[in-house]
Amino acid sequence: MLDYKLLEALVTVIEAGGFERAGVALGLSQSAVSQRIKLLEARLGQPVLIRSPTLQATPTGQRLLNHAQQVQLLERDLGRTLPGLNADRTRLRIALNADSLATWWADAIGEFCREEGLLLDLVIEDQDIGLRRMREGDVAACLCSGDQPVAGARSTLLGHMTYRALARPDYLAHHFPEGPQQAAFRDAPAIVFGPDDQLQHRFLAQRGYHGRFPYHLCPSSEGFVRLAQAGMGYGMIPDHQGHPLVASGDLADLAPGEGIAVNLYWHYWRHGGDFMERLTSTLIRKAQRCLQVPG
Amino acid sequence: MLDYKLLEALVTVIEAGGFERAGVALGLSQSAVSQRIKLLEARLGQPVLIRSPTLQATPTGQRLLNHAQQVQLLERDLGRTLPGLNADRTRLRIALNADSLATWWADAIGEFCREEGLLLDLVIEDQDIGLRRMREGDVAACLCSGDQPVAGARSTLLGHMTYRALARPDYLAHHFPEGPQQAAFRDAPAIVFGPDDQLQHRFLAQRGYHGRFPYHLCPSSEGFVRLAQAGMGYGMIPDHQGHPLVASGDLADLAPGEGIAVNLYWHYWRHGGDFMERLTSTLIRKAQRCLQVPG
Repeated sequence: MLDYKLLEALVTVIEAGGFERAGVALGLSQSAVSQRIKLLEARLGQPVLIRSPTLQATPTGQRLLNHAQQVQLLERDLGRTLPGLNADRTRLRIALNADSLATWWADAIGEFCREEGLLLDLVIEDQDIGLRRMREGDVAACLCSGDQPVAGARSTLLGHMTYRALARPDYLAHHFPEGPQQAAFRDAPAIVFGPDDQLQHRFLAQRGYHGRFPYHLCPSSEGFVRLAQAGMGYGMIPDHQGHPLVASGDLADLAPGEGIAVNLYWHYWRHGGDFMERLTSTLIRKAQRCLQVPG
Repeated sequence: MLDYKLLEALVTVIEAGGFERAGVALGLSQSAVSQRIKLLEARLGQPVLIRSPTLQATPTGQRLLNHAQQVQLLERDLGRTLPGLNADRTRLRIALNADSLATWWADAIGEFCREEGLLLDLVIEDQDIGLRRMREGDVAACLCSGDQPVAGARSTLLGHMTYRALARPDYLAHHFPEGPQQAAFRDAPAIVFGPDDQLQHRFLAQRGYHGRFPYHLCPSSEGFVRLAQAGMGYGMIPDHQGHPLVASGDLADLAPGEGIAVNLYWHYWRHGGDFMERLTSTLIRKAQRCLQVPG
């Protein structure tokens, strides 16, 4: 079998983001960690890590990480039937979209984590990057709007979040006195999550507008809402955050009835074992309460 | 003088994160953008961009970005005395910490943005990376806890945020029945913002604990609070978010009276001109209301 001490060093260097931190996490010196990586590379006859400009796994290193992650999940299952085997808590690295993390995610997974002693390493990524990190073995699961599973994984629809174009009432009166007319979009500042954010473009395309528009870039779910509350722009806000603010009159809907539904799929390794299956069942069940589910 | 059309192409490629998007932003074809970058590189006799693994500016490109940013700020000043000169809105790229963006930032800057037509490109970075991006000319200003300005910049203290170790009352009763005793820290799951998050370590060091502890990693300010509300762990939460939740009984203070104050400094280019000076004055003034300020 593989030497899992060496693999563990690789996993920890990537998770902790450096040799020194990996040493702290493993209770080893930095040079002992470095030795293990070197030995792993010597056995394979090729590098597993790229040191610069940023520390990352080589394609070979990624295959090892992917394998180690699946082994850890299987160990977790084994630990249930042999409780004395492993006193460590399971850590699971999961990529998910910022809006889920800022809203319903903790409600859906909290009880499972408490009962199973599961610790989460959460990584905020949009769909393309999240699935790429999954393919590269850097995360064990991914929650995103893409439905196509990567090789070796399954995906299941949990439900959807509905986004509406919201802004402060005085902002709407000033910038959209005639409602969501095309001419107004050219000058009214929008709030966009990031260069990859397609929601704003989808909303404008729905209204038949394809031109340029001014925008703030705000890669924070909560910051996004705060910018809207400060009257700085209009933006696509999920109902989880928007409903209470519309109810209180803080925000208003620019185009009532034109919400955009974004499906959320849970991607997980097919060979993740019983633990991953139970986590998946929990999420499917909790989504009934936390998300809008397919009717 | 320099050919600013070429510099504008460089700025836009970096801001938009790619040639195709830069083309869209500039109303040019992708190949026209590419030609401009090539011409710039031919004139300089060296590359300004590194294409892979991620698109970024070379050290030479960074100096050009830095210069272009300062020129844009000065143009902004000029535009105030010559209103017809430039109908474009100013864009300012600012690095800031996630907790500020999730809480007081929009209240402090919203009015200024509305009145001046300023658009923000916000980038969430911790202090070290934020200041590095500033040094590299990638951002025009940085809000962080570090006080040392980079060369050519000034820093000014805006105030501080106070963080307290909060968790759900039933979590505290279960994991800390005797209060914040050292023995309990070994097994009680914490919530940590990221591998660079020093607040948790400072809190534990204050309590005399230096050992390992289990933790969830959650790089989202709002997600962090939600994990605590779901009873998944205790974590250092700023008063902006914590006060209302403690008042409502959702969260409770693990170690009352042992908050950690984190100073927030505003870093900006010394030659940013009158526009940057006014923005800075506004933030200093608004901080009186939004932050705890030095008494």
